Amino acid sequence: MNQTIDLILSHRSIRQFTHDPIEPQQLDLILQAAQAAASSSFLQANSIMRVTDPLIRQQLAELAGPQPYVAQAAEFLVFCADFHRHRQIVPAAHTGFVEQLLIGAIDGALMAQNALLAAQSLGLGGVYIGGIRNHPAEVVALLGLPRHVIPLFGLCLGHPSQQPEQKPRLPQAMVVHENRYPERLDEALLADYDRQIQDYYQARSSNNKVQTWSSQIAGTLGKEARPFMDAFLQSQGFNLK
Amino acid sequence: MNQTIDLILSHRSIRQFTHDPIEPQQLDLILQAAQAAASSSFLQANSIMRVTDPLIRQQLAELAGPQPYVAQAAEFLVFCADFHRHRQIVPAAHTGFVEQLLIGAIDGALMAQNALLAAQSLGLGGVYIGGIRNHPAEVVALLGLPRHVIPLFGLCLGHPSQQPEQKPRLPQAMVVHENRYPERLDEALLADYDRQIQDYYQARSSNNKVQTWSSQIAGTLGKEARPFMDAFLQSQGFNLK
Repeated sequence: MNQTIDLILSHRSIRQFTHDPIEPQQLDLILQAAQAAASSSFLQANSIMRVTDPLIRQQLAELAGPQPYVAQAAEFLVFCADFHRHRQIVPAAHTGFVEQLLIGAIDGALMAQNALLAAQSLGLGGVYIGGIRNHPAEVVALLGLPRHVIPLFGLCLGHPSQQPEQKPRLPQAMVVHENRYPERLDEALLADYDRQIQDYYQARSSNNKVQTWSSQIAGTLGKEARPFMDAFLQSQGFNLK
Repeated sequence: MNQTIDLILSHRSIRQFTHDPIEPQQLDLILQAAQAAASSSFLQANSIMRVTDPLIRQQLAELAGPQPYVAQAAEFLVFCADFHRHRQIVPAAHTGFVEQLLIGAIDGALMAQNALLAAQSLGLGGVYIGGIRNHPAEVVALLGLPRHVIPLFGLCLGHPSQQPEQKPRLPQAMVVHENRYPERLDEALLADYDRQIQDYYQARSSNNKVQTWSSQIAGTLGKEARPFMDAFLQSQGFNLK
């Protein structure tokens, strides 16, 4: 093994931070790391909003949950898909394709994972905030995002003041398939994993849920998934054509 | 700096590989690294197809371009968004939301970037293959992907037999914005960057394009972006509602 693999495999989301700031040189490295990621057709179709204004932070923290660490973290970055820059340069650019939503989402996440790992390598920690998609139009207004820019997710970064347990992942055999997707789910593997997750929740005194993974996803997918997202994307010029 | 940041900042896409295989223990670490990434609402809504069958590789290489390194690389992984597994476990699951397309695309890319960096830390290299989205229905058929599973992109991995130049990225000031998205594009910064990219292409003897970044994106965005993607996604049960 090596430092990079150790870092990757020891990942846990950090939601509690000390009050220490992130040094400007460190932040610069983190942002350089983000930009070093591969870019689809070299479109560089992403922007990063760095939110330093405490009032905006507080409002984003509320909109995202509330998730107070959005206000408390040393840094809060919002990764965006951005085709506005292209349209400024090329007014006749074809935009609004669902393919471009995929490019923006995929490339934005590649950048963010570089940023998070660079931060972790510096002793920092962080957590992704998908919750900013709870109220995307409000996020657009708060950050002054033009049409053809959408907020994808946030990233809190700071000096960790907690060391949470790692949550066990699905068995590799349920996620990685060779050549052909399997006909059947491996029920025995799933049952083992469900017990593992139940034990994980049971062992966390701060959490009295004793859900299996199956019951957890049944809860999440028993509800509609941000059904306003389509209308929001359309309103920002991502027509999904 | 440290090994992880050095690795991230020295990234270049590798498209030429030796014939050496990737050791099974190394591949296992790479796949573990992928699964260690954060997962939105812990849905784990992704699968990875590992393509070892040379005939399928050859067909994917054709469909993606052709891009011969898809057939030549030691390993070829296809990262998928997967809500089929959830539906096997929870038949009443609500699926088909565009939000779930975002979750699948974002989380799949977080996993892939972990995998690529883990591979790079082991002396391997790779390149993402968005080109598998040229013919997504054919990729679905080749890999036997059920409804509610879509191929996002491929990842070639292997032992590098080239050391390409790094392509300069947009200036940080054009990509990272504090609190509010700027009203105007910085034309002077863009002009500098355009010259830089022109120099980059000019210096590569293998490539006689002397495009600026602006002319390059004008070319890419002068065409429709995979206009069949919407119909494909619908046909796989990603209704974008």
